[in-house]
Amino acid sequence: MLRPPEHQVAGHYVSEGNLGPLIDGSGLFYKPLQSNSRGENELAFYSSFFSHPGVPHRIRSSFFPSFHGTQLLPHSAAPSDLHPHLVLEDLVADFKSPSIIDVKIGSRTWYPQADDDYLRKCLDKDRESTSLTLGFRVSGVQISGPGSVIWKPERDEIKRFTTTDVRRALRRFVSTNNSGSVPSPDCALATEVYGGSEGVLAQLMELKAWFEDQTLFHFYSSSVLVVYEKRADGVKARVKMVDFAHVLEGDGVIDHNFLGGLCSLIKFVSEILTDPEESKATTPSPQVEDGP
Amino acid sequence: MLRPPEHQVAGHYVSEGNLGPLIDGSGLFYKPLQSNSRGENELAFYSSFFSHPGVPHRIRSSFFPSFHGTQLLPHSAAPSDLHPHLVLEDLVADFKSPSIIDVKIGSRTWYPQADDDYLRKCLDKDRESTSLTLGFRVSGVQISGPGSVIWKPERDEIKRFTTTDVRRALRRFVSTNNSGSVPSPDCALATEVYGGSEGVLAQLMELKAWFEDQTLFHFYSSSVLVVYEKRADGVKARVKMVDFAHVLEGDGVIDHNFLGGLCSLIKFVSEILTDPEESKATTPSPQVEDGP
Repeated sequence: MLRPPEHQVAGHYVSEGNLGPLIDGSGLFYKPLQSNSRGENELAFYSSFFSHPGVPHRIRSSFFPSFHGTQLLPHSAAPSDLHPHLVLEDLVADFKSPSIIDVKIGSRTWYPQADDDYLRKCLDKDRESTSLTLGFRVSGVQISGPGSVIWKPERDEIKRFTTTDVRRALRRFVSTNNSGSVPSPDCALATEVYGGSEGVLAQLMELKAWFEDQTLFHFYSSSVLVVYEKRADGVKARVKMVDFAHVLEGDGVIDHNFLGGLCSLIKFVSEILTDPEESKATTPSPQVEDGP
Repeated sequence: MLRPPEHQVAGHYVSEGNLGPLIDGSGLFYKPLQSNSRGENELAFYSSFFSHPGVPHRIRSSFFPSFHGTQLLPHSAAPSDLHPHLVLEDLVADFKSPSIIDVKIGSRTWYPQADDDYLRKCLDKDRESTSLTLGFRVSGVQISGPGSVIWKPERDEIKRFTTTDVRRALRRFVSTNNSGSVPSPDCALATEVYGGSEGVLAQLMELKAWFEDQTLFHFYSSSVLVVYEKRADGVKARVKMVDFAHVLEGDGVIDHNFLGGLCSLIKFVSEILTDPEESKATTPSPQVEDGP
């Protein structure tokens, strides 16, 4: 039985008359192929990526949802209309109460060949969000406690996130005092989630090492999805890349736009590990003027 | 006796009625303070950078020209007009026949607070040059043989450099067959100049490690200057940062724009070391379409 995913934090939702992703409850995620060339481009990426000899097996299996081709599924609002879907791995199928954050990486979401209208549209969003200043922006977040969602801000609230809000969201994400107004996130799970040899930071560093070297693909507007949950035997944390409607050929050049943003995210995460007490605001500032 | 530097490859030149840099021949470089706020901003950067406790001594001494305050010097066209100059280290004072390349780092030369006119002006230049695609552009290059300059393309030629031209310039830079049309650069000096524990790549990697961590300064429109010369006892190679008229406060965020571009330059240089035969063009391309 296909149904909308419980744990979606960003992207297109199923709604009346609209297509949205579906899951089958046993590990597969059906993503409607987007109209115009985006859907075709995302399909082309999956096909290319999963067959390219230059992509290390470990990168493919660790950081990307597995890909199982496409399937025609009826449109919920008009069951006689069949729409093509990408059949992907459901990244949270084995989680009961996942905490999830979707971070769109890159200070620039438009690609060099973009026409002026598209450039302007993306540039405006990059400037209004933290993309331009931080090299990434939060696209969605959900923090779960045992059995229930504790914090899941609305899309409009997330769109207004400032640098301070982003820093705070990454702290709340690993805190256990998330109910109510949360004066100061306790970062009680920081070491277990972000730290350690299988933690988020280690996974981000491995992804970074690949981006320092790979010149096959440029990922515009793609996200890093971080998922974790606290279990009896410890924390299970996963880092995956998602959303490939705007991936282009790398043409022998590294994806410096993605890499720069990823390094910035890594710095934010590592600061939480080294300084869970949130003393960052007191760092002395240099004396350079504000507008050259 | 102050005189124009022999080995300038980029920036403002002394010309009739215009101010340009001067050297004293014994190790100092006098850079005229630029009008409008750029000059003030560059001076503010040097003052802040050389007194900031957060900057490691090794970074300061290895990668930045030393700073000796300012000095009023007469304008050559109007000797009674005194103009303030930054007094800096002459980075090529101890070189007889330096080969030099000036690489402006960053896919974006404008800063987030830039007004629309300045943004547009910079964005156009970034798109017309390789900045947007490569994360850096060559601003000047001079290749010297023993006692004479062998290749020093005009500014207009450099402005039209494509990705292929940039790749080729970085190969020619370490080649000894640079006279004439140079069908295929021999990269005879690649190992000595780019490789080794004191070579260019090692220095760029050390600079990169600092940029992964430092959140004090954001360097817009700054360059990495690479200088080397072949001597009796081997190659002397130096990597320095220059041009700080557009440095802003980092505000606790890494300079992901500079870092991404620097990583791209590092990849280009390391490819020359691992593949001096220029076989790069035959790498298989992925099958992603060209415009999503």
